[in-house]
Amino acid sequence: MTADPPRAGTVAVVSLSAWMESALGHFERAADAQLPPVSARPGRLHEAMRYAVLQGGKRVRPLLVYAAGELVGAPQAGLDCAALAVEYVHVYSLIHDDLPCMDNDVLRRGKPTVHVAFDEATAMLAGDALQAEAFRVLAEAPLAAEPRAALMRELATAAGTGGMCGGQAIDLAAVGTTLSLADLEQMHRMKTGALLRAAVRMGALAGEPPVATLDSLERYAQAIGLAFQVVDDVLDVESTSDVLGKTAGKDAEQGKPTYVSILGLGAARAWAGRLRAEALDALGGFDRRADRLRQLADFIVLRKH
Amino acid sequence: MTADPPRAGTVAVVSLSAWMESALGHFERAADAQLPPVSARPGRLHEAMRYAVLQGGKRVRPLLVYAAGELVGAPQAGLDCAALAVEYVHVYSLIHDDLPCMDNDVLRRGKPTVHVAFDEATAMLAGDALQAEAFRVLAEAPLAAEPRAALMRELATAAGTGGMCGGQAIDLAAVGTTLSLADLEQMHRMKTGALLRAAVRMGALAGEPPVATLDSLERYAQAIGLAFQVVDDVLDVESTSDVLGKTAGKDAEQGKPTYVSILGLGAARAWAGRLRAEALDALGGFDRRADRLRQLADFIVLRKH
Repeated sequence: MTADPPRAGTVAVVSLSAWMESALGHFERAADAQLPPVSARPGRLHEAMRYAVLQGGKRVRPLLVYAAGELVGAPQAGLDCAALAVEYVHVYSLIHDDLPCMDNDVLRRGKPTVHVAFDEATAMLAGDALQAEAFRVLAEAPLAAEPRAALMRELATAAGTGGMCGGQAIDLAAVGTTLSLADLEQMHRMKTGALLRAAVRMGALAGEPPVATLDSLERYAQAIGLAFQVVDDVLDVESTSDVLGKTAGKDAEQGKPTYVSILGLGAARAWAGRLRAEALDALGGFDRRADRLRQLADFIVLRKH
Repeated sequence: MTADPPRAGTVAVVSLSAWMESALGHFERAADAQLPPVSARPGRLHEAMRYAVLQGGKRVRPLLVYAAGELVGAPQAGLDCAALAVEYVHVYSLIHDDLPCMDNDVLRRGKPTVHVAFDEATAMLAGDALQAEAFRVLAEAPLAAEPRAALMRELATAAGTGGMCGGQAIDLAAVGTTLSLADLEQMHRMKTGALLRAAVRMGALAGEPPVATLDSLERYAQAIGLAFQVVDDVLDVESTSDVLGKTAGKDAEQGKPTYVSILGLGAARAWAGRLRAEALDALGGFDRRADRLRQLADFIVLRKH
């Protein structure tokens, strides 16, 4: 029930960073192998897709897939497909968000955005193609038809009008208006929460888990989904463009309602702490196999960028 | 082996139009029921999705789904889902194509394009959401997991970088350049052929057909996929904006290579006729249950818009 950071350098923190480094290295190699090569036509489109996906980032969604997969003992190859798919959808949404007709941003992860590095048409197509590739990766995952179909259903629901795209549209409409806390929460549940939730569920679904496990993961995912956004809003105020790798202070400048603008900075920070406690509580019934998920809840709330 | 139109008013033509009217009415009702209501948030996004999908059009892809489904006796509810999914992907691609950063077109099916009737951001999101909805419809189709996963795989492959988006990117890069006939054919196989082929295959896959059936349908689909584009290029030269419901003569104006610009008008027309014969030949082993597919081959080649 606190927003204070834990002591750094504890065993758990060290071991999380080692696990993250290994998981991220594995993910990068899987993405590099799965994405179409620049040597194949249309090379420029493939280059843009690779530019967008392979420029790093926190990879929170793939990490959640792997961590939830660890809990249920899901097969690695299936998890890789789920991790790629959910990250492709995330990356496509960033490419489209950055376009001039949306946020018109030129900087992402410290590098020129896709439409700046390439052009608008290529950026739009790269996003479109990544969404299709996300479903293709799942459709071709080395899993039985039942979990494959379940993974695609999960991703499609999270990506569509009841999830990410819908949240995006509500966000657009909210610029310059006053939102209630409940409205803001609904918007973020859809815009970012739905895909984070899908990441957790997809990691579990790849291992065909018992219903009770999914129920507990649901509570966990709801809590970290919201916490992620609250922390994002806090960092937008507290941090700099250099540390964030994207334009800081943009929400306030664009008149976007945020948790900080509604709650104030201190209360927003405190709420992130409570959501972290809620996430950990949801995992109370699990043994050590849920430790990665516990550590990721810490990571999401305590990150600096 | 001729490009001359068949005699109008034959029994087959009349019965096709009755079937089409019934199938299209059925499709419109299914789409209206499936698309999210304007009364639900985000209403403007839902309105844009409905505007784009429910404004008619030839519905060639849904008709191909239904016709192929008739051949194999696929269940109606599964076919409806396949028809919606493939049309959603087609419509999303039109919305994005029409945007200022792509073709910058203001007229589609005789009405203002989505970004003109709404705004660019809403148009982009409506396209994005329709792609996600396409996969959600398939994921929730009342079919066993195996055919459901097969349908999603088919659509994802056709929509992605090896299909529609890839063809789109090659098309973009080709403006103002000289393409060989082989290059033009590859571009169209990807840009429009892949989704038309998917429509035929998805109609069949919903009924879990024998491999030999899929092989024959493959030849049929390849032929009508190309024929569709050849006829499009012919109509772009021969027809008017009023008849087409979109801007005529645009290919030449934009310096886009077309079958007409490479082959000449007469040879392009003749080739469409040969492709029609090829499509009919591919169906030679089937009984009357393939008649709808035969009639659609005629329709695609002989249409006036």
